[in-house]
Amino acid sequence: MLVLVLGVDVGGTATKTVLVDDAGAVLEVRSRPTPRPGPEIVPEVLDLVAELACELPSDHVGVAVPGIVDEPRGVGVFSKNLGWQDVPFADLLADRLCRPVAFTHDVRAGALAEHALGGGVGARTMLFLPIGTGIASALVTDGRVHDADGYAGELGHVDVGHGEPCPCGGTGCLEVVASASAIARRYTARTGREVGGAVDVARRVEAGERAAVSVWDEAVEGLVTALAWTAGVLAPEVVVVGGGLSGAKGLLLKPLTEGLSARLTFQRTPRLAPAVLGGLAGCRGAALTAIATQSQVPGRRAG
Amino acid sequence: MLVLVLGVDVGGTATKTVLVDDAGAVLEVRSRPTPRPGPEIVPEVLDLVAELACELPSDHVGVAVPGIVDEPRGVGVFSKNLGWQDVPFADLLADRLCRPVAFTHDVRAGALAEHALGGGVGARTMLFLPIGTGIASALVTDGRVHDADGYAGELGHVDVGHGEPCPCGGTGCLEVVASASAIARRYTARTGREVGGAVDVARRVEAGERAAVSVWDEAVEGLVTALAWTAGVLAPEVVVVGGGLSGAKGLLLKPLTEGLSARLTFQRTPRLAPAVLGGLAGCRGAALTAIATQSQVPGRRAG
Repeated sequence: MLVLVLGVDVGGTATKTVLVDDAGAVLEVRSRPTPRPGPEIVPEVLDLVAELACELPSDHVGVAVPGIVDEPRGVGVFSKNLGWQDVPFADLLADRLCRPVAFTHDVRAGALAEHALGGGVGARTMLFLPIGTGIASALVTDGRVHDADGYAGELGHVDVGHGEPCPCGGTGCLEVVASASAIARRYTARTGREVGGAVDVARRVEAGERAAVSVWDEAVEGLVTALAWTAGVLAPEVVVVGGGLSGAKGLLLKPLTEGLSARLTFQRTPRLAPAVLGGLAGCRGAALTAIATQSQVPGRRAG
Repeated sequence: MLVLVLGVDVGGTATKTVLVDDAGAVLEVRSRPTPRPGPEIVPEVLDLVAELACELPSDHVGVAVPGIVDEPRGVGVFSKNLGWQDVPFADLLADRLCRPVAFTHDVRAGALAEHALGGGVGARTMLFLPIGTGIASALVTDGRVHDADGYAGELGHVDVGHGEPCPCGGTGCLEVVASASAIARRYTARTGREVGGAVDVARRVEAGERAAVSVWDEAVEGLVTALAWTAGVLAPEVVVVGGGLSGAKGLLLKPLTEGLSARLTFQRTPRLAPAVLGGLAGCRGAALTAIATQSQVPGRRAG
């Protein structure tokens, strides 16, 4: 009997949804605008998920959200972008949908999906590194994601030594030089020229434009520092680079690989691989989480 | 029926052994010199373990060794101090003792023991940080230690930005300023005065001696940098500080706690706790590993 699973990823601007079967085939993909932050954001998100669940009937539902997420307790602890705090999403979703809903974190869900289906297939230990508006990280070991009650994964806010202040209050944060937004912002600050994003800067790097190259090199330097630490302490076999910046592929992964090889001495050098699932990693991971959670409930049958 | 478990920790200079029962009571502790590095080191270590197993009869045996240890394959991949490479210890020990022997890594075994019995009891996520001749780390989550095929845990060789070269070939390694040996060595280099070790330097810090204070502050600064990274990326609830330097207790943990609080912004600040098991953490952990391994063998009964 075919089991259908709905995975929903409530993102900062778009909510992405995938309907898959338990063999992993993707039957349907949808994207909707995420409700705007405001006093009604939580009921609006619940309505949106309920609507999607109604349009795309399934046996199991998994929902991923950003921010600090406490999976064991099923709570969205904090999201700066969506403006909520301490929301018991797992319970609220179960009430709204009249059945259990697996609740998880967008980046950790994406990591699970890239591990099961994408750039990290077959690795015992993998680091997922999405580089977009911000930078996050998730460590997968033997198929489990390290969550630390929701607080793990802030590789974007480690001090890589560039000395510039970060809006978080810290200094030298990786995100300030190496996120896709930072690359675009720093290029504009240095040249006065507006760009459409980091991919524009990447094009100018390929064309050999000096200001673009220096901004890019500083981003790579920061990422090499962060990955060298990670290689020493966590020693992932593979680092799967995702998010908007992963579109730069060779321009990013080649200098990162070279920089890491030059920096590491006796530590295991991770293989760097591009993410495969793109913007669907989060909702694919939410669906996987729904399947995994379901299989942990003894006595409950699908369908 | 009482089940007896022997835990052996083959250290750089001493091999420590504990006989415990399955309720955790310590029945016997022994220490022997570890065989000297040389062409016969491996058979000599096997003889030593066999001898201990004969003197202290037990139902299960666990053995921990230093260096890079691949637990899933049961191989001592590399030990610089003891001078071995790619030794299939699990198989060799099983042949020598005519029964299965649990094989593990000294620091990861110590982490398990501190988590189960020592400074990390009750924490879902714990970092073990032994600071002695060198500095290592081990991450425990839900009772499992992150091993990454034996390559994890090199927090002693992350670049904390002091710019000095490390014998490993890297620059700025934490170990160069913050290990117990480094503190003693740097104090002597700065003052020309020989000291018995970092504990001597700690005494001079308490007496307000300026050179000692500056060496100590540099060590603390490096450790704060390393722990701030760890707090962001791994977010352990508690960091258990072990090894020789943990004897300095307040002199170390107080400024570390203050430094971390000042450095972190939104990240979860870990509680810092002194290790409880001292030099026995490794052999206690080897015994725990023997019990855990045993419980995974279906159908095999103890005793």
